[in-house]
Amino acid sequence: MFRLNENYLKLPGSYLFSTIGKKVAAYIAENPEKKVIRLGIGDVTQPLAPAVIRALHTVVDEMANPETFHGYAPDLGYEFLRNAISGEYKRFGVDVPADEVFVSDGAKSDCANIQEIFSADSSIAVCDPVYPVYVDSNVMAGRTGEYDAVTGRWSNVVYMPCTMENDFVPELPEEAPDLIYLCYPNNPTGSTLTRDQLQVWVDYANKNGSVILYDAAYEAYITEENVPHTIFECQGARTCAIEFKSFSKNAGFTGVRLGYTVIPKELKCGDVAVHSLWARRHGTKYNGAPYIIQRAGEAVLSEEGRAQTREQVAYYMRNARMIYDGLKKAGYSVAGGVNAPYVWMKTPENMDSWEFFDFLLKEGNVVGTPGSGFGPSGEGYFRLTGFGTYENTVEAVKRIGLL
Amino acid sequence: MFRLNENYLKLPGSYLFSTIGKKVAAYIAENPEKKVIRLGIGDVTQPLAPAVIRALHTVVDEMANPETFHGYAPDLGYEFLRNAISGEYKRFGVDVPADEVFVSDGAKSDCANIQEIFSADSSIAVCDPVYPVYVDSNVMAGRTGEYDAVTGRWSNVVYMPCTMENDFVPELPEEAPDLIYLCYPNNPTGSTLTRDQLQVWVDYANKNGSVILYDAAYEAYITEENVPHTIFECQGARTCAIEFKSFSKNAGFTGVRLGYTVIPKELKCGDVAVHSLWARRHGTKYNGAPYIIQRAGEAVLSEEGRAQTREQVAYYMRNARMIYDGLKKAGYSVAGGVNAPYVWMKTPENMDSWEFFDFLLKEGNVVGTPGSGFGPSGEGYFRLTGFGTYENTVEAVKRIGLL
Repeated sequence: MFRLNENYLKLPGSYLFSTIGKKVAAYIAENPEKKVIRLGIGDVTQPLAPAVIRALHTVVDEMANPETFHGYAPDLGYEFLRNAISGEYKRFGVDVPADEVFVSDGAKSDCANIQEIFSADSSIAVCDPVYPVYVDSNVMAGRTGEYDAVTGRWSNVVYMPCTMENDFVPELPEEAPDLIYLCYPNNPTGSTLTRDQLQVWVDYANKNGSVILYDAAYEAYITEENVPHTIFECQGARTCAIEFKSFSKNAGFTGVRLGYTVIPKELKCGDVAVHSLWARRHGTKYNGAPYIIQRAGEAVLSEEGRAQTREQVAYYMRNARMIYDGLKKAGYSVAGGVNAPYVWMKTPENMDSWEFFDFLLKEGNVVGTPGSGFGPSGEGYFRLTGFGTYENTVEAVKRIGLL
Repeated sequence: MFRLNENYLKLPGSYLFSTIGKKVAAYIAENPEKKVIRLGIGDVTQPLAPAVIRALHTVVDEMANPETFHGYAPDLGYEFLRNAISGEYKRFGVDVPADEVFVSDGAKSDCANIQEIFSADSSIAVCDPVYPVYVDSNVMAGRTGEYDAVTGRWSNVVYMPCTMENDFVPELPEEAPDLIYLCYPNNPTGSTLTRDQLQVWVDYANKNGSVILYDAAYEAYITEENVPHTIFECQGARTCAIEFKSFSKNAGFTGVRLGYTVIPKELKCGDVAVHSLWARRHGTKYNGAPYIIQRAGEAVLSEEGRAQTREQVAYYMRNARMIYDGLKKAGYSVAGGVNAPYVWMKTPENMDSWEFFDFLLKEGNVVGTPGSGFGPSGEGYFRLTGFGTYENTVEAVKRIGLL
C-alpha cells in the first residue's frame, strides 16, 4: 500500500496567506456592504508599465507567425534575458556572467526548491520572523525535526530573532548552520543590513563552510546609500552565496511570474559546483519561463521600462512612508518603510498578532498580516504594505488612526 | 561544511534532450552549409491559434489597466480555467469537479514534482522505454538505488519492458509497486492501451494499493474509438489514479507553459487525501501559472480554439502518418503514428540507437531521438516526431529513404 510523505502532515495549519484569504472572504461574505482595504499580502496594484505592455503585444504577434514562433525555451533561460540581467548587476559594480543566471517563474519557487540540491541532513538557520516558504519547504523535505506548538519552533531549525530590541539585526549562530536564509530588504520587518553588516555574514559563511541563501526580492526599494543591492557587493560572496531575485515587486509581475537565481561557479562542495546541480534540476524538472514573459522581463530592464517601473516603486514607497508616519503619529511603535515596502508595527495593548488581525479587519476593515505568521518572534507584531493604491492607503491610515 | 544532495551525482550523463541539443549544435557549427531537419525533441512548429492570439492581446490590455490588472493568482488556478477543464472532461463522459484540477506551468513540472508528496521509500515502476523525467526525478529523491551502467537500470526501479515483441503492452509487475507511471498515448513509442487494457491496470492498482501516475499529455492525438481519453473513463480510477495533462501538444504551448493535474478527492492513504498534500505543495512552493497564460488556456478550450487546435493536431498527425508510411515503404520496422505524433522505428543493421542518431545526423542531416535515451529497452529503437513542418517532414522522409 502506497504511503505519503509524512513530513507534510507535520505542517501546522495551512499556508499563512491562504488562511488570511479565507478569513477575509468569510468576513466579506457576512458583511457585503463593508469596503475592506487589503494591505496584507504583498501584492501589487499598479498595472504593468507601458514598455512591458508594448513588448507583450509585439511578442504575442511573434507567436502568431510560424517564422517567429517560439517553442521550448532554453533550459536556463533565453540569452537575451540572462544578458540583460547580467547587465543589471554591472550597474551595481558587480560582475555576474550571464551563464550564472537561472531564469525561473519567480523567487518563491526558487527559494522553495533550492533546498533540494543540498544534503537531506543539512542544518538550516532562518531569521525570526521570516517568509514562511523557507521553513515550510524544509519541513516538507524532513529537515526540521519536530514542531513545538507552544514555542512555535521546529527542533532542528536555528532561529535568529530579529526584534525591535536588537534593531532587527540577527546574531551569528554559535554553531554554524549549513544553510543560512537571509532576506534583505527584509520581508516582513522592512529592515536592512548595511554593506558592512552583510560582509560579517559573508565572512562567517566562508569561514564555516555555510551557504547563504540570499533573497533580494525587494532590492528595488532600497533608498539608502550604505545598503547593498546584491550580496555580491560583499568580498568573497562568490564562494558562499546564492541570490534570488524577482520581477514581482519591482515591475508588478506578481501575476506575470518571472524571477531568477544567481549561483556563482566558484560556489563548490569539494570539486562539485553547486551551479551544476541547479542546472540539472532545471533541465529535469522545469521547462523554462514562457517566452513571452521572458520578453516582458527584458522590457522591464530596458531604459524606458526601468524609468517607468522606478515610478511604480516610488508610488509604493510613498504609501509605505505614509503608513509609517501615520502610525507613528497615532502613537504606534513602527519600523521599516525606508528601504522596503513593508511597515512592521507593534500591536497595541498586548494584543497578539491574530487578535489584532481580527480587530483591524472588523473595526477598521483593513487587512494586514499577523506577525506571528512569520515565526514566533513575530508574535505581537503586524505587517502592513505599501502595495495598495494611494487612495486606499490614505483611507486605511485614517481608519487605523481612529481606532 | 555544507554538503550536496548526492543523489544528483548518481545521474549518468546529462538530460537526454540537452545532450541532443549539444550534439546538433556542434554538427551545425562544423557544417554551417547543411540544412538540418529536427524531428527529435517533441517541440511544435505551428504558431498559436488565432483564438489564442486574440485572447492574449485582450488580456495584455487588461494588465495595462488598474481596474482589470491581475496580481497573484489563486494557488491552484483561476476558476474560469478550472471550470473549462472540468467541462473538457464532461466531453469524455467523465465527472471531474473543478476543485480536483490543479493548474500549473506544464505536465513536465508536475510529473517531476509529484513524487515529493509520497513516502521517500516508495517503490516505483516505469515502462521501459519511458520519458526520462519520471525516473530522473526519483533518482534525485534517492528512491532508485544504484545505477548499473551495463544494464542501464537502477536497482530499485521496476522496469516493464515495452517492445515490438510484446506489442508495447507492459506486464503487471509480480510484486505491486507503490507508484506506477503510465503514459498513454505513449511517449516515446506512440503506442496506446485500449480501455479494457487500461482497466486491468486500474483494477490491479486498487487491489494492491498502488497509485497510477497517468501522463495523458498526448490525449489530443487519439484517433481510435477504443482508446480512452482519460484514465477516469475506467471504473475505480478515482481511488487509485492521478492524471497529468498539458496544453503543449494539443495547442502548441511548449513555449507558453500551461498544464494541469487531476487528483480525485477519493484517492486516500488512510484518512489523508492525496489532494490535500498536492494543494499544500502548490500553496507553499508555487505561485500559479501567469494570469495571461491561463486566459490563453481558456481560449484553447473555447469552441473556436478547439476547432483551430484540432486542425493543428491533424497537421502533425498527417506528418506522423507520412513518416510511418515512408519508413515502412523503405523497409523499416515501425510502430506508433496512429494515436500519437511519435513514430518508433527499429534501427537498421543492428546499429545501436546513438550510432543511428549520429549516422542520421551526418548522412541525412535529420535529427531524431535515440531510443536508448528513454531506457534500456529502447536500445535499438529510434523516435521520430510529426511535429516538424509538412515540408521538412516530406524532405526528411525522402532523405531517410535514400540512406
